[in-house]
Amino acid sequence: MKALVYHGPGKRSWEDKPKPQIQAPTDAIVRITKTTICGTDLHILKGDVPSVKAGRILGHEGVGVVEEVGSAVSSFKARDRVLISCITSCGKCEACKKGMYSHCESGGWILGNTIDGTQAEYVRIPYADNSLYGVPKTVDEDALVMLSDILPTGFECGVLNGQVKPGDKVAIVGAGPVGLAALLTAQFYSPAELILIDLDENRLAVAKTFGATASHGKPVSLKLEKLWAHNITLTTRLVDTVTTPMLLKTVVAGKLPPKKLITHQFRLDELMKAYDTFGNAAKEKALKVLLTAG
Amino acid sequence: MKALVYHGPGKRSWEDKPKPQIQAPTDAIVRITKTTICGTDLHILKGDVPSVKAGRILGHEGVGVVEEVGSAVSSFKARDRVLISCITSCGKCEACKKGMYSHCESGGWILGNTIDGTQAEYVRIPYADNSLYGVPKTVDEDALVMLSDILPTGFECGVLNGQVKPGDKVAIVGAGPVGLAALLTAQFYSPAELILIDLDENRLAVAKTFGATASHGKPVSLKLEKLWAHNITLTTRLVDTVTTPMLLKTVVAGKLPPKKLITHQFRLDELMKAYDTFGNAAKEKALKVLLTAG
Amino acid sequence: MKALVYHGPGKRSWEDKPKPQIQAPTDAIVRITKTTICGTDLHILKGDVPSVKAGRILGHEGVGVVEEVGSAVSSFKARDRVLISCITSCGKCEACKKGMYSHCESGGWILGNTIDGTQAEYVRIPYADNSLYGVPKTVDEDALVMLSDILPTGFECGVLNGQVKPGDKVAIVGAGPVGLAALLTAQFYSPAELILIDLDENRLAVAKTFGATASHGKPVSLKLEKLWAHNITLTTRLVDTVTTPMLLKTVVAGKLPPKKLITHQFRLDELMKAYDTFGNAAKEKALKVLLTAG
Amino acid sequence: MKALVYHGPGKRSWEDKPKPQIQAPTDAIVRITKTTICGTDLHILKGDVPSVKAGRILGHEGVGVVEEVGSAVSSFKARDRVLISCITSCGKCEACKKGMYSHCESGGWILGNTIDGTQAEYVRIPYADNSLYGVPKTVDEDALVMLSDILPTGFECGVLNGQVKPGDKVAIVGAGPVGLAALLTAQFYSPAELILIDLDENRLAVAKTFGATASHGKPVSLKLEKLWAHNITLTTRLVDTVTTPMLLKTVVAGKLPPKKLITHQFRLDELMKAYDTFGNAAKEKALKVLLTAG
Repeated sequence: MKALVYHGPGKRSWEDKPKPQIQAPTDAIVRITKTTICGTDLHILKGDVPSVKAGRILGHEGVGVVEEVGSAVSSFKARDRVLISCITSCGKCEACKKGMYSHCESGGWILGNTIDGTQAEYVRIPYADNSLYGVPKTVDEDALVMLSDILPTGFECGVLNGQVKPGDKVAIVGAGPVGLAALLTAQFYSPAELILIDLDENRLAVAKTFGATASHGKPVSLKLEKLWAHNITLTTRLVDTVTTPMLLKTVVAGKLPPKKLITHQFRLDELMKAYDTFGNAAKEKALKVLLTAG
Repeated sequence: MKALVYHGPGKRSWEDKPKPQIQAPTDAIVRITKTTICGTDLHILKGDVPSVKAGRILGHEGVGVVEEVGSAVSSFKARDRVLISCITSCGKCEACKKGMYSHCESGGWILGNTIDGTQAEYVRIPYADNSLYGVPKTVDEDALVMLSDILPTGFECGVLNGQVKPGDKVAIVGAGPVGLAALLTAQFYSPAELILIDLDENRLAVAKTFGATASHGKPVSLKLEKLWAHNITLTTRLVDTVTTPMLLKTVVAGKLPPKKLITHQFRLDELMKAYDTFGNAAKEKALKVLLTAG
Repeated sequence: MKALVYHGPGKRSWEDKPKPQIQAPTDAIVRITKTTICGTDLHILKGDVPSVKAGRILGHEGVGVVEEVGSAVSSFKARDRVLISCITSCGKCEACKKGMYSHCESGGWILGNTIDGTQAEYVRIPYADNSLYGVPKTVDEDALVMLSDILPTGFECGVLNGQVKPGDKVAIVGAGPVGLAALLTAQFYSPAELILIDLDENRLAVAKTFGATASHGKPVSLKLEKLWAHNITLTTRLVDTVTTPMLLKTVVAGKLPPKKLITHQFRLDELMKAYDTFGNAAKEKALKVLLTAG
Repeated sequence: MKALVYHGPGKRSWEDKPKPQIQAPTDAIVRITKTTICGTDLHILKGDVPSVKAGRILGHEGVGVVEEVGSAVSSFKARDRVLISCITSCGKCEACKKGMYSHCESGGWILGNTIDGTQAEYVRIPYADNSLYGVPKTVDEDALVMLSDILPTGFECGVLNGQVKPGDKVAIVGAGPVGLAALLTAQFYSPAELILIDLDENRLAVAKTFGATASHGKPVSLKLEKLWAHNITLTTRLVDTVTTPMLLKTVVAGKLPPKKLITHQFRLDELMKAYDTFGNAAKEKALKVLLTAG
């Protein structure tokens, strides 16, 4: 099959690789129909992510069709349409039982990192029962790719940790895909004001079409020496994709328009070109680029 | 001044009463500009509320203009435009400190109940600092009257106690003003489905225009002998109006359209006629009737 | 092997049954070292639980030693000492992902109900990775049997749903094993008063030794027609045993003394006699009877 | 009357000052029976707190007896025994309604800061209804002084913000009075381990007698560059003393032993000497020093 392979800092190619095989009874093989590129993939290509070794197929987002399942997979079967989560969850370690899938003992973010990823014609998904989601037939596949990573990241790390409430005044620093995903999902809770802060004029303009009530284009510094007395909470976390079922429901109900994030469309075999575009996001005015198998 | 006075079961009149005076340093006198009639007022007129004695001026909702304040009132002064809460809060008892204003030791629901109410040209508001809310100039007064009681009741007792979340399926039994207020405020949280249940076809039709995704016109029974095993929570409470500041923000931000609840408009001195209309709500297709001082 | 078998209402026997075998790759076979009898087992024997058919081995509590595991079990291996949860969890259905194991699509309470249970020399545990818990070596096994069902039931359905807080006044109706488990675990949160209500004088006396600050021996009626205005919350739920890891930590740390619940000790092959004792709990002053394999 | 007066950095004296008078109808005058010195008072004396001007009577903790109340005070009367909160709350601004008394528009921490404080024979308490607490007769006054500031500070900023749960492993950095107050109140929630970290051997030894399960005497650095991926939450806040009613209940119920914090006893007129002792806390092995009026 064809796949986008990382060959060390600055080097990538679209090349032939062996089609993945079932390795464990909990695995599934998925034929990719749609995938995308994440800012993290660009970091990998810069050599910033040492866990990713040369020879690795990149990508941790996508939707597809189940090709084959291992003997212990019970929720999916061949020909099922599925959403691939960027986070792999075994469902049985202490972290998974708490809904902290990103800290799964044998999973977490491994796709396109420590195992081959989704920027390929096929991908092997470990712990398929807990790491894939059935896709409602009525939902547009383009929209669903945005649920693999970018929307749960903005929602979980931004909106849920920020405890957005009706009537609130919310500031989001950074109008890139994650910031815009936070902007879209913050609106679940009817805040009164949504202020986006970014240095890129184009992104601020986009933010307004996404529901921002105001945007701000100057640098902001966080004066912790004064803020401490104002009951500040700082939170950090990895995305767990534990809200994927909730997000799927909101997409089905028409409460969330994920397709707004897609600015460019390519064929899957144009992945090299898509990387060129996404790598020049500011110039190309790119948010998310969508790749569709032929 | 003129006021709507209860004279025992079935008896009410629009008559002269003495203008209220400051009695305690925490009192304010408010000139009523807008008021409305609550379902509770109809219960009082049927004789169902023994705490209400003959001679009482009815009404616990309204907006107005401050006429005079007691020496200990610091948040309001003469000529301030204010929203009157149906719940009086002293701000210093154990219940008030917990935000349970309805259980205030010397307040709670007393207006139009154990003290004279708002269906009059003037009303005395005890503990004015904690029982009135400043009214933003840009907001329509008609909308604000709906925040005295009906919207916080639907929101606090229904939506907050029901813990509505994005993607949820929500059922509301009863499409009267409280049910419709719950319907409007449930939408703060982006549920996927909002099912209204009522026997009145007109109210179900109204509910659809308020955002209900489905409505149901047959009686429903609650089979507790089966439901117990499904992690059921039943909650009961009185409205505290503790969410009034939040609701005000959502009205200002255009996230909440309270005026939808108003079906009939009268002059304040038409209160007797307004009662006739509201008392035949089904026939008159009345939800909330609005009274405006001349 | 020997097992306690239900033969229809009122009929039970200690008899030979085939030793259970691995049926699915996620199964484990456990040799029982300790088990107990639940009030639910008495209900089954009365014929009150129609899902339990004649021929069923009863029992859903116990600790033991893993004898054999299926090919997909990764957290346990032969000779591991384990606590058996009364609730079987697949770890991958929607309910399990929410921590509502009692509503697991293919699990929930099935042991000693729809599949053979723990009152036997061996038991088959489906979804072993998610339904067994590793047992710390330093902890007394007698104490651990109380964590299979009775302690999480009192804790989850009583204490957590009741939201017990420091300084609270708590009333528990019923001083049987579940009520006493609630009494023990309520003390995690330092309430000021713990009032037990029961008609059995002996149980009230026991409750005092378990930390009750007051006990009450007269019937109590719930006046809902008055209580509704006092912000009442009624909750119902099944035990999920989702707090088993937390409870294990508190037992290890010496914060929870589960052995207090054990009033009678028997050999495993004395199960018929143990049922006689437990079936006359009031007369025998029995709370929990413990069975130990020879 | 006599009072401890700040006269600029490094300068304090025990001197004659006019007895405070009622200035507003919501004031009370309290005769101090017990007070103490806070670490903040030492900061003031170093000149670190610019809001405190020369001539100010210091102190924001204490218990006493009401001498006189303003006309609008309704919860207290002369001769009532009261606990003084270090935080003054008007009870009617937006912050107070949310329970954030430290951000009260006209209150917050003002005692011994912008108005005269409690290290004196008498003190004026603004907004007495919301800033004093009735003292149960059965409770030792020495214990109660610890509830003015130190215990709510450790509890609210440490234990509540830290969301301590049964079975948790808790680390507390700093075994001074605030750290020890967190140590005492963390035990409300039955954590499994309580690790204190301090460089002072004596304080670590004290911590063990207060319930610490382990103590650690080496510097600890917070590696945020690695911790960010571990779902870290950092919170900062001022104490609101909103938990004072809860803490009072736990003291009455014998669940909290505040007197453990008191290491030294003085007469009120020995305040200068008490400052000498408290200012050399390490050498004097001082935690809290208690001052009692003669």
